[in-house]
Amino acid sequence: MLGSTHGTLTSGLRARVVACGEEPRSAVHDTAAARASQGDLDVSGRPLYAPVPDLDRFFSPSSVAVVGASDAEGRPNAGITRQLIGWAERVGARLYPVHPDRASVFGIDCVSSVRELPEQVDLAVLLVGDPLPVIEELGEAKAGFAVAFASGYAETGAAGAAAQARLTAAVARSGLRLLGPNTNLNAFETFRDDLSGPAIALVTQSGHQGRPVFALQELGIRLSHWAPTGNEADLETADFISYFAERPEVGAIACYVEGLKDGRSFLLAADRAARRGVPIVAVKVGRTDAGARTAASHTGKLTGADQVVDAAMRQYGVIRVDGLDELQDTAALLARARRPVADGVAVYSISGGTGAHFADLATAAGLTLPRLSEARQAELHQWIPGYLSVANPVDNGGHPVGDWRGRKIIDAILADPSVGVLICPITGPFPPMSDRLAQDLAAAAETTDKLVCVVWGSPVGTEEAYRTTLLGSSRVATFRTFANCITAVRAHLEHRRFTSRYLSPFDEAPRTPSPSYRKAQALMQPGTQLSEHAAKQLLRAYGIRVPREQLVTSAAAAVRAAGLVGYPVVMKASAPQLAHKTELGLVKIGLTSASQVRDAYRELTDIARCEGIDLDGVLVCQMVGRGVEMVVGVSPDALFGPTVTVGLGGVLVEVLHDTAVRVPPFGEDQARGMLRELRGHALLEGVRKGPPADVDALVEVVLRVQRMALELGDELAELDVNPLMVLERGQGAVALDALAVCR
Amino acid sequence: MLGSTHGTLTSGLRARVVACGEEPRSAVHDTAAARASQGDLDVSGRPLYAPVPDLDRFFSPSSVAVVGASDAEGRPNAGITRQLIGWAERVGARLYPVHPDRASVFGIDCVSSVRELPEQVDLAVLLVGDPLPVIEELGEAKAGFAVAFASGYAETGAAGAAAQARLTAAVARSGLRLLGPNTNLNAFETFRDDLSGPAIALVTQSGHQGRPVFALQELGIRLSHWAPTGNEADLETADFISYFAERPEVGAIACYVEGLKDGRSFLLAADRAARRGVPIVAVKVGRTDAGARTAASHTGKLTGADQVVDAAMRQYGVIRVDGLDELQDTAALLARARRPVADGVAVYSISGGTGAHFADLATAAGLTLPRLSEARQAELHQWIPGYLSVANPVDNGGHPVGDWRGRKIIDAILADPSVGVLICPITGPFPPMSDRLAQDLAAAAETTDKLVCVVWGSPVGTEEAYRTTLLGSSRVATFRTFANCITAVRAHLEHRRFTSRYLSPFDEAPRTPSPSYRKAQALMQPGTQLSEHAAKQLLRAYGIRVPREQLVTSAAAAVRAAGLVGYPVVMKASAPQLAHKTELGLVKIGLTSASQVRDAYRELTDIARCEGIDLDGVLVCQMVGRGVEMVVGVSPDALFGPTVTVGLGGVLVEVLHDTAVRVPPFGEDQARGMLRELRGHALLEGVRKGPPADVDALVEVVLRVQRMALELGDELAELDVNPLMVLERGQGAVALDALAVCR
Repeated sequence: MLGSTHGTLTSGLRARVVACGEEPRSAVHDTAAARASQGDLDVSGRPLYAPVPDLDRFFSPSSVAVVGASDAEGRPNAGITRQLIGWAERVGARLYPVHPDRASVFGIDCVSSVRELPEQVDLAVLLVGDPLPVIEELGEAKAGFAVAFASGYAETGAAGAAAQARLTAAVARSGLRLLGPNTNLNAFETFRDDLSGPAIALVTQSGHQGRPVFALQELGIRLSHWAPTGNEADLETADFISYFAERPEVGAIACYVEGLKDGRSFLLAADRAARRGVPIVAVKVGRTDAGARTAASHTGKLTGADQVVDAAMRQYGVIRVDGLDELQDTAALLARARRPVADGVAVYSISGGTGAHFADLATAAGLTLPRLSEARQAELHQWIPGYLSVANPVDNGGHPVGDWRGRKIIDAILADPSVGVLICPITGPFPPMSDRLAQDLAAAAETTDKLVCVVWGSPVGTEEAYRTTLLGSSRVATFRTFANCITAVRAHLEHRRFTSRYLSPFDEAPRTPSPSYRKAQALMQPGTQLSEHAAKQLLRAYGIRVPREQLVTSAAAAVRAAGLVGYPVVMKASAPQLAHKTELGLVKIGLTSASQVRDAYRELTDIARCEGIDLDGVLVCQMVGRGVEMVVGVSPDALFGPTVTVGLGGVLVEVLHDTAVRVPPFGEDQARGMLRELRGHALLEGVRKGPPADVDALVEVVLRVQRMALELGDELAELDVNPLMVLERGQGAVALDALAVCR
Repeated sequence: MLGSTHGTLTSGLRARVVACGEEPRSAVHDTAAARASQGDLDVSGRPLYAPVPDLDRFFSPSSVAVVGASDAEGRPNAGITRQLIGWAERVGARLYPVHPDRASVFGIDCVSSVRELPEQVDLAVLLVGDPLPVIEELGEAKAGFAVAFASGYAETGAAGAAAQARLTAAVARSGLRLLGPNTNLNAFETFRDDLSGPAIALVTQSGHQGRPVFALQELGIRLSHWAPTGNEADLETADFISYFAERPEVGAIACYVEGLKDGRSFLLAADRAARRGVPIVAVKVGRTDAGARTAASHTGKLTGADQVVDAAMRQYGVIRVDGLDELQDTAALLARARRPVADGVAVYSISGGTGAHFADLATAAGLTLPRLSEARQAELHQWIPGYLSVANPVDNGGHPVGDWRGRKIIDAILADPSVGVLICPITGPFPPMSDRLAQDLAAAAETTDKLVCVVWGSPVGTEEAYRTTLLGSSRVATFRTFANCITAVRAHLEHRRFTSRYLSPFDEAPRTPSPSYRKAQALMQPGTQLSEHAAKQLLRAYGIRVPREQLVTSAAAAVRAAGLVGYPVVMKASAPQLAHKTELGLVKIGLTSASQVRDAYRELTDIARCEGIDLDGVLVCQMVGRGVEMVVGVSPDALFGPTVTVGLGGVLVEVLHDTAVRVPPFGEDQARGMLRELRGHALLEGVRKGPPADVDALVEVVLRVQRMALELGDELAELDVNPLMVLERGQGAVALDALAVCR
């Protein structure tokens, strides 16, 4: 349907300068890197591709320089140097302490300056107060990466932000890539190497906030990397996500994000992970203004409008969670769980109460508990007393878990084709039952591709069955609360569904302006709000239907216009900057005769005179039938650029703010998803026996408005189609009024 | 404003038979017990008072009989008997094994039957398969309480429910009180007696589900009682809540509820706790139909409509939580926390990221983080580097906690008058900092009445600082997740606010019918849906304004009526059972002349004829000005009886189901609270520069409808005022249409 506006190449490429951070640089190992260097941009000038830095050199360097190394007792740098020496030994890197005055540090010969380094080091760790002078030297020495620990940059205010900008510029000139400033040693921690299976890779903008995920290793969950990105003067969260998404050992990426450096680079990284089916689980601060302000003062970054961040993450399948415990539990499950063979969840417990409670919460969260077949129930009743319900939840009453029947029951549930996930909530340890239950679950999990989850409800957590049997199994996902188990299982099932039908919007994003763009440009009046009539012409340029209408400046012309557009007509005063027309009495509807039109013309011009409004005329418009009033608009977002919003009109948008937003580019599936998100979406399906609305036409308008956002985004400060009258199915949608503000 | 409808005694007391379970019986220690025995009932016939059973005799008996005691190796009863003997020793009770054949059990002489017991035992534990025959004997032996473990009652279906009804009847005849059937040993567990301070008392309808709260003792939280109520054939959750609310050692009551036996008795118990300021924290299964069904099959009780349960709990300050972990953490905090001196929360952390993240989630949850004064910030900057923000959250950057400055900072924050709660989230243990920080927090907490909370974010939980320093302090509330800390602190602050202004609605509930009731009775037509006209007369009887209107049966009469009610008029077809009048074209509005009225009469009767509707006439109604359309109604609830619902009219109630509900009796504060709960409540404050609506008049209608629910509840199957047109402030509210179905 949108073929006409997607169009073909009709005007030259409107390429823009890409921010330094996104330019391809030294260390790119992507085969398609050429695409980026040729400037693969969409019609808005934003990149359609982001290169992946070769972070192998960072995480597994052959050689490391420590600038400012020290072994002076009590100096913080001495502790850091000691940790780096140990880390270099573990990863097998040659380490060069760099210090102008010392001969050696911890027994290792010092190099007096970066210029004296005997080889092109992969990584330089800068422990100096001001890393700026060292950056140029490192560039000349062809170092691969640098890490700057120093703080006092953008997180401290304007002067710090200026210093950070100087650092960023120096890094861009140097050809190396920088982690930091305001970062720490987390990348050089000791990771457990005795754990196998898919790992979590961690990216955090605060070292302390990553600690609980790192500590998962103590529960047997493998971690492969930790990138503490700090102020992101150069390398940003997105770079690490892109890199981790391509590492074979990474099963899931866990992020703690306070603010994003650049919206587009984050989306491109999330897109890369979505294409590869690698889940990203993220805490993103900024639910509230208070949180956003505090976060900004911590790492000096924008948090972005939360509704937009939330939508952007969902568009690319990023799983947003609120707590670090949810981050732990969800990332751990998603890293290790195999692709589910079915979405059905079976709940199995030794107490009917536990089963009922868990089933209640799981169902409320949207999980599906299929009723087991009569045959399966009969099988289970071989081992479970007949008065207990085994339809799902399966309540065994307790005793069967203590003997051979326990394993039979678990195997029978797992054998059911409707079941993809078995969850066993054990709210209190009772060793005669729970120890054997844990053993049976762990053993059964080894024999199936289905997901086996246990909730260990004891507040203590030192029990043998928990710490050894359950945590010792890499095939059982163990949780401590019902809520986190449900959150993680839902995220797992949703993410698999999402990636199985994921189509990257960047593959379909328009690269060149549509034929509409040239028409639209002629209508733009920089720095002003267009009149209603001009705004509607803009919509018409993009193929959005508006009522037949004429702008007239006399009563006689109004009558002629009414004859042309056809009675009944609507008449509206027209002037730039004119808002609240209805409240001012500047709209007359249902005019059915020439005399009514003449009277209306007189009345509208009289009111405008009294109100001191300088009209450019009166609009005589075709009257459109009844339908569902919607609003569709474009608004700018500091992080993501122009966004597209849809809402239900009238009181729903004014009082309830019932709107959905998306970040372009997005496809038809997302446009339809926006409508489903609206709390009042049932209105579109028809109420009080009314006919359903023309949802297809509405979706088309949303996609055409997206095209406007992409092509005109930087010239259009604001666009609001309000109301868009969506007629009954097959009848289309008509923009009855529009507001457009040019930059 | 409601004086006229509250009225005075005009008709006799319409007392009803009160269910057996609520009748006062043997063991009542309440001084006001006489009130109940005199039948203190509200106008609906429901009790205004519930006696408290003397459960001292149950929990601390002097003598216990164990009927069916055994020491036969391998028999379940032997294990139970052994546990009961140990328990009786601990509580200092004489124990009598009762068995027809055995001389002794575990070396204690047996009594051959209940009739042979040497004294009136306080408690008899029935280990027999069928407790029914023993109940009568125990009654004759003047036993105080019995516990029945046997299962196979209401939880198993109709036959079991009948057996349970026989048991209930036998108990009622016997004069003793029964716990169970389908219960367990939880009441006779070993409680730690080395813990001091206010305790949690626990009531659960499933033993397994209470285990995690019981296990809190292993974290140093005191538990005083555990009542596993099972099927509640006699004693119910409400009885234990009432008893626990009056025990001086109980700081909070934790409940796991699948279904309520009786809505009113639960509310009376919650009212008792609210009057005494004792918090009740409850998990209540039944968020979803699936959960409700499963729960019903577990203990054979109704879960009730969840929105009504939720509202009823909030009316009485019951804190509803979803997870057992929230139950643990919230009950533990509320049991031990002192009355807060201020609502302000200060967040203190060793990482800016942690502070920002916590502040974001806390603010989103509605907690208030006051900005600390400049003077206080200057004080904190004595010890904290100047570039770190200490406005709240207070970020110390880490290092000051390692030395003497740590305690100074904590004391300075606690000294701030705006701060009532200090929360320190420690997301990862780092012993050089976190050990001392934990010690300083524990020490500071001993010196203040303010609440000190710590979140210990390590997933492991075996760290010394956590297990010894923090859990060892009864003055620090320690959590494992941000979310549970925020939930508990918010519950604490809200509960204190709630109880500080709590007025029991039972004190104000009408006991006798209003003068309106006699008028209303004359209008009721049992078994039918009233015509619109009759339903409006019912409203008028209760002082609710309706338009001037006349029911006419000829065009001429319609014209005369229009002259009387005043032009313009609205005309509507009138017939019993008539719904969807507008959709059928059976409403004509804005008629301004006799000829229009005549035409409308003809048209309405024509349509009715075509549709086969047997009209009782045509209503000619006064046309009412514009306002906000609301709905107010009465619907029955299986647990709580008639409930009152308010919603915003039109699309808001049809598509969004934006309604609020309350269980009578409730006061004006709750009626106003209902309006605030509506998502679209801003409509009442005026939109698009419109005037605010007459909220006072709306509240009055809600209270008058409540009065109808109380007085007519059992005769009125359904009442819907839709729309109620709420005019602008000072202009009142008018019921434009009404539906009333009589039983």
